[in-house]
Amino acid sequence: MRLGTVRAGGARLAAVDREGLWYALDVPAGTPLETVLAGGIDETRRLAASAAGPIADAVPVAPLRPGKIVAIGLNYLDHIREAGMDRPERPLMFAKFPSSVIGPGEPIVIDGELTERVDWEVELAAVIGAPIRHASPAEALAGVAGYTVANDVSARDLQFADGQWTRGKSLDTFCPLGPAVVTPDELGDPQSLRLRTAVNGETVQDSSTAEMLFGVAELLSYCSRAFTLEPGDVVLTGTPWGCGEFMDPRRSLRPGDVVEVSVEGIGTLRDPVVGR
Amino acid sequence: MRLGTVRAGGARLAAVDREGLWYALDVPAGTPLETVLAGGIDETRRLAASAAGPIADAVPVAPLRPGKIVAIGLNYLDHIREAGMDRPERPLMFAKFPSSVIGPGEPIVIDGELTERVDWEVELAAVIGAPIRHASPAEALAGVAGYTVANDVSARDLQFADGQWTRGKSLDTFCPLGPAVVTPDELGDPQSLRLRTAVNGETVQDSSTAEMLFGVAELLSYCSRAFTLEPGDVVLTGTPWGCGEFMDPRRSLRPGDVVEVSVEGIGTLRDPVVGR
Repeated sequence: MRLGTVRAGGARLAAVDREGLWYALDVPAGTPLETVLAGGIDETRRLAASAAGPIADAVPVAPLRPGKIVAIGLNYLDHIREAGMDRPERPLMFAKFPSSVIGPGEPIVIDGELTERVDWEVELAAVIGAPIRHASPAEALAGVAGYTVANDVSARDLQFADGQWTRGKSLDTFCPLGPAVVTPDELGDPQSLRLRTAVNGETVQDSSTAEMLFGVAELLSYCSRAFTLEPGDVVLTGTPWGCGEFMDPRRSLRPGDVVEVSVEGIGTLRDPVVGR
Repeated sequence: MRLGTVRAGGARLAAVDREGLWYALDVPAGTPLETVLAGGIDETRRLAASAAGPIADAVPVAPLRPGKIVAIGLNYLDHIREAGMDRPERPLMFAKFPSSVIGPGEPIVIDGELTERVDWEVELAAVIGAPIRHASPAEALAGVAGYTVANDVSARDLQFADGQWTRGKSLDTFCPLGPAVVTPDELGDPQSLRLRTAVNGETVQDSSTAEMLFGVAELLSYCSRAFTLEPGDVVLTGTPWGCGEFMDPRRSLRPGDVVEVSVEGIGTLRDPVVGR
């Protein structure tokens, strides 16, 4: 199943994508996917299975507004090599604020007064569907409602000057999510998916989730030892080789660019870049 | 006005505290304060002013579940001196996950497998009631619905070993909030409030919000240049002198302790400490 949220008739609405057509879940108008997920994975699947009648003029937006966004840094072996860093001994955790989320086709806005070094990061994002706390890796995976694609857009100058990464990772529009949340049964093994980024059509990241240092199950278990992962939370699992920051010469996003991030089996999230 | 959320008859309910009695706002049962705030400051005040009939058996819980928690480090001159640090040139921002929030009287849980150095931090917390974006300090203040007390509980060993502070600041139960959200007109100048922490009755922090390096208005304006502060968000404004980490010998919270954090004009937030 491919779950998401669409805008139709002025309201946000949880929906399921069947071969390019969006069908409304049988929930009150204005109910987005995160509210449906709060009812549990089984109920969400039941509602999606029974959805009938495609929605006219449905525009997919961000599939959900997360309760929290947990992000992991330096989690791909190829990225650790390119950055010339040591392997972290444990997952390197940081936060992105939920106010940074946008959906497919929405502009990534660069405020030139704040940053001149805006970078892309394609990531596999796990969407939580059941509370995960003190969980083994296998138990943690059972709490995943599905997976989507994230672009962990990063203002490198702010990230490194601040020391704490929160601000440089949380500027408004810096967390494109989408185009859909694909359930685990449909996606298959999350550790063997190709993921790519293209800027203006040119491939800049091209790797596989097999390159992860800590896999999805291990990351979620690690998080769950510290805090509760709740339905509607999103965990970004790190980015591979190919960020602009580590190229020679360094590359940054500019107004007028178009960024596409893709994960095999989920789809492509395409967002234009504009100035403020 | 003193706004909050109470538990009564099994439901969470937005309410207003008048001289120790809680009155229900005229909203559907199960509506907490953050949902009311999404309707705007004026509507929230109108609902609070018209509340009639005290709630039987009302138990105050965390006044709201924030959409995001923005926290500021090293923002008190007396704390910067005790830590032997340089004055930050700009606010030092980090995040606490909303899943860490608890209310008055709820236990702060120490997981001995994760941390041995749990510290207290009394803070004045601003609760946002209207969207704040690209705002001057004066404009930003107009978006504050009220102020509450926060205890920015911190696992110092995790905080410093991780480098990124998110995990050590976001363990479940590590953000006590309450006992009420006091509106700006009732509280008065947020930069002249005494704030204190007592552990088992012994005063360990005792300072004034006059010691802030960046005042509330400036902090909110600074945040708003990076991202939107939304209704229901909470901004923690830093802690003064007197954390256990910088005492000689160092002090940490232990199961059996009771921590009280207080801000003048708002009240005292009292939480016991327990082991996992």
